[in-house]
Amino acid sequence: MKIAIAQINPLIGDLSGNAQKILEMSQQASLAGVRLLLTPELSICGYPPRDLLLNPSFVVSINQTLEKLAADLPPNLAVLVGTVVKNSQAHITGGKNLFNSIALLENGQIQHFFHKRLLPTYDVFDEHRYFEHGLEPNHFKLDNLHIGVTICEDLWNNEEFWGKRSYPINPINDLADLEVDLIVNLSASPYTVGKQNLREAMLKHCAVSFQKPIIYTNQVGGNDDLIFDGRSFAVNKQGKIVSRAHGFVSDFITIEFNSNKQDIELGHISPVDKSENEEIWNALVLGVKDYVHKCRFSKVLLGLSGGVDSALVATIATAALGKENVIGVLMPSPYSSEHSITDALALAKNLDIQTQILPIGKLMQAFDSSLNDLFMGTEFGIAEENLQSRIRGNLLMAISNKFGYLLLSTGNKSEVAVGYCTLYGDMNGGLSVIADVPKTRVYSLCKWLNSRQLQEVIPNNILTKAPSAELKPGQVDQDSLPAYDILDDILDRLLYQHQSVAEIVTAGHDRVVVDRILQLLSRAEFKRRQAAPGLKITDRAFGTGWRMPIASSWSVLRNI
Amino acid sequence: MKIAIAQINPLIGDLSGNAQKILEMSQQASLAGVRLLLTPELSICGYPPRDLLLNPSFVVSINQTLEKLAADLPPNLAVLVGTVVKNSQAHITGGKNLFNSIALLENGQIQHFFHKRLLPTYDVFDEHRYFEHGLEPNHFKLDNLHIGVTICEDLWNNEEFWGKRSYPINPINDLADLEVDLIVNLSASPYTVGKQNLREAMLKHCAVSFQKPIIYTNQVGGNDDLIFDGRSFAVNKQGKIVSRAHGFVSDFITIEFNSNKQDIELGHISPVDKSENEEIWNALVLGVKDYVHKCRFSKVLLGLSGGVDSALVATIATAALGKENVIGVLMPSPYSSEHSITDALALAKNLDIQTQILPIGKLMQAFDSSLNDLFMGTEFGIAEENLQSRIRGNLLMAISNKFGYLLLSTGNKSEVAVGYCTLYGDMNGGLSVIADVPKTRVYSLCKWLNSRQLQEVIPNNILTKAPSAELKPGQVDQDSLPAYDILDDILDRLLYQHQSVAEIVTAGHDRVVVDRILQLLSRAEFKRRQAAPGLKITDRAFGTGWRMPIASSWSVLRNI
Repeated sequence: MKIAIAQINPLIGDLSGNAQKILEMSQQASLAGVRLLLTPELSICGYPPRDLLLNPSFVVSINQTLEKLAADLPPNLAVLVGTVVKNSQAHITGGKNLFNSIALLENGQIQHFFHKRLLPTYDVFDEHRYFEHGLEPNHFKLDNLHIGVTICEDLWNNEEFWGKRSYPINPINDLADLEVDLIVNLSASPYTVGKQNLREAMLKHCAVSFQKPIIYTNQVGGNDDLIFDGRSFAVNKQGKIVSRAHGFVSDFITIEFNSNKQDIELGHISPVDKSENEEIWNALVLGVKDYVHKCRFSKVLLGLSGGVDSALVATIATAALGKENVIGVLMPSPYSSEHSITDALALAKNLDIQTQILPIGKLMQAFDSSLNDLFMGTEFGIAEENLQSRIRGNLLMAISNKFGYLLLSTGNKSEVAVGYCTLYGDMNGGLSVIADVPKTRVYSLCKWLNSRQLQEVIPNNILTKAPSAELKPGQVDQDSLPAYDILDDILDRLLYQHQSVAEIVTAGHDRVVVDRILQLLSRAEFKRRQAAPGLKITDRAFGTGWRMPIASSWSVLRNI
Repeated sequence: MKIAIAQINPLIGDLSGNAQKILEMSQQASLAGVRLLLTPELSICGYPPRDLLLNPSFVVSINQTLEKLAADLPPNLAVLVGTVVKNSQAHITGGKNLFNSIALLENGQIQHFFHKRLLPTYDVFDEHRYFEHGLEPNHFKLDNLHIGVTICEDLWNNEEFWGKRSYPINPINDLADLEVDLIVNLSASPYTVGKQNLREAMLKHCAVSFQKPIIYTNQVGGNDDLIFDGRSFAVNKQGKIVSRAHGFVSDFITIEFNSNKQDIELGHISPVDKSENEEIWNALVLGVKDYVHKCRFSKVLLGLSGGVDSALVATIATAALGKENVIGVLMPSPYSSEHSITDALALAKNLDIQTQILPIGKLMQAFDSSLNDLFMGTEFGIAEENLQSRIRGNLLMAISNKFGYLLLSTGNKSEVAVGYCTLYGDMNGGLSVIADVPKTRVYSLCKWLNSRQLQEVIPNNILTKAPSAELKPGQVDQDSLPAYDILDDILDRLLYQHQSVAEIVTAGHDRVVVDRILQLLSRAEFKRRQAAPGLKITDRAFGTGWRMPIASSWSVLRNI
């Protein structure tokens, strides 16, 4: 039997558009002699639909769209489509109103619904907010093939692989007991660095321990902060990857199930990225492209400071949108160095993007004279530094509003963590492209970019000079912060590893530095709450999966 | 037996400070001959601690603080303290790592932990993110009194009262089966308009149907967007309120359980607010006061436009912080009316607060000349309008940064819903005071304020003139928006009642208007994502309980 994966890129809430994408791949599948087509979790509405699910009319409309799609499908093709189903017993049994489900469409109709059994409620996932978990194992027979159906998290509770349980039940045990021939997993699994290795290792382990081939279908595309990387794949009973779709693009692949061997055959295996830098690069390019286009923009602008962060963001944007759709704006002040201009222009020349130069000296003077009486007798400080950043933010937003370009924000994760950024200034923008990329990784990405081309992309001087906000004469970042390799290591221990101060000090860091970073981290919470969505590439990003109080006592963490 | 309620106002994460508050009320209780003291849900760390719970060292520290508190308590007093407990079986049984628990402290030690059984995961609540639900009914004997223990949501599943189930089990049934003498409920229940009526009606119903007196203990105080209103109370077997603590302040009340009558005696009953306006006013005043002080500020500033929104926010801030701690800044432009100044100054005079006047005409000219070449040949539009708002936002933030005053944002819910506000302009601020107050309610609150005083607080002209952003000559809000009573009714139907467009049209609204509001609502999502925390007073506020995608297709909702 020929089975295919429709690795589609849905737009959240665009039911007819998403149905059309599924229909097109169904027609392609039909022409290729495919009997069963797989689509990702919630493929009809896109993942994650979030609080759109709270509108009853949204749920009604999903079902209407699904019925129409069923009627439109080519003959002799069964399609598994991700959808939601109303839990009609909710008010009696006391459960959530919806199921996160897969519909089996065939012969012009919805034949069956399968309900997701394990509902992730951690990090960016809020599935318990909307969904009741299914109680029954999900499986069906197509011709003579007995197929087990799992939805994303359903396969993420392998006690042996993880060394612990995350949920009381493990759906794959039930499917093995039912002696299914094949397991399909329909997912919407967001990208993080190294996640594909984890998925493949986990499903290889499952396939071998249960002696079942597994076909894993993932969503692709950027949806706000989340980047879905695709890379759907199939693993045979021996635990070998026998097919893999491309990463970071829509794709369609076919897989042959051999009923004699009771296993899947070797097919086309797209290679994975060669390095973490390549993978992150592809993720960020897709994240920018989709956010900009799904928000119905075509062009973007950003401030070019001559520094490494804006250089990387401009390069990502150019790759995502085309050089004619990226505008760099240089806004030098009297504190700006000569190289801030020359480096920014050299970058723009390498990328072949348009630039505008808008010096801010006169605007600084205008603000100074407005505030002169009020600020009389005070010293130059944070207020004056932030004003420069906010003048730039205003100019960028004025251009954005005037010409309908989306403003990209260029702050990196290290800065955002410790608040080394100006709210309503350089934090301005519709999307924060590298908000989850630590500064050390920013450098590493830039060096990788330069190394893979015959000619330099990021001018070398940008990579070798000391990073500086240039908001007062002679300022460099390391006046205020520890060296970035130290800062990033402390942040990783605090944010991702959830280490205590004592543990971080034991690992070799200076107690005073760690205390200070923790204090800065906590105090910057109010800035992060007002930050633009930032593309997530790690397992602990600021954004929808980071939920911290603002008015709180950070000292509790400092003292333990 | 004498029982007391410690209605405390915790600071999130300030374990030693919160323990000290419990200790002080314990000493007060001991002097009053109290045998059992009740404190709110998670009283040791404050509710909601959010992702602080993901730090193992935070949990360790909570337990250390709890043990110390137990040792410090006066003799002959038992205290129920809200805390978290590690789920030591989580990795084996597949559950969440923590329980949301109540510790019984007595004789210098932790005697027992009770685990919350129903975990709210909707609106602002994310309890499934952190907690495993308890499986056992919670009860204990103190002397001869058999006490059932419930934690907040545990009592919110009364099928008969609600006409539906929200959870599979109902803990109060178990307690009734166990024949407890009395039920205590330890809560952290955030304020929304009319919520106290609901709580009292629900617990009266429970008390009568199960023939058990109930003592309800609530947290008080503002924690970021959430305002906890206190108003702890006791209801006897006849369903009569026999005690009630004050609303919106810390309080300590005692309640006598009469073992002969097997019921609680009539005690002190603090009155509830006389009107919704009074209640909302008290909530907002507390919300401002606590956010400002818990973030370690003492003074605030805000822009005074001469309009009704900033007038109300200034009045709330003055009541919350004292007139000497509120600074109003007037920033007239060439488009500002004469009355924008006179009305703002009249308000400031009524409130006796300081003002500063910073005209922005020259700054507008400076931006115009900076952007002149770039904007050549374009018409005056949104870019120029927003620039004025952003110049004001910059001036306010410069003062905030220079003098360490917290900036209050003054946008109302109707504006924030449809995006009639400027990101990085009038949306600037650390706290958005009336972000959950619809414009019609803003007027109603102002009229109530004037009516309750002998002299006018909000100058009458502010209430009678047509609302205007004054960003171009002759502009009024109703050039761009429907009348506010229509807008607010449509928004209520869309946001809170989750009605479809068809239903709203059937209710009598114009289809074109409803479509347009839905489009504006959806398109403004990117602004709301970057908004300051807004004080929640309704059951559907923008903020932590509003989780909408940005890059999505709003048309799906418009077409159904």
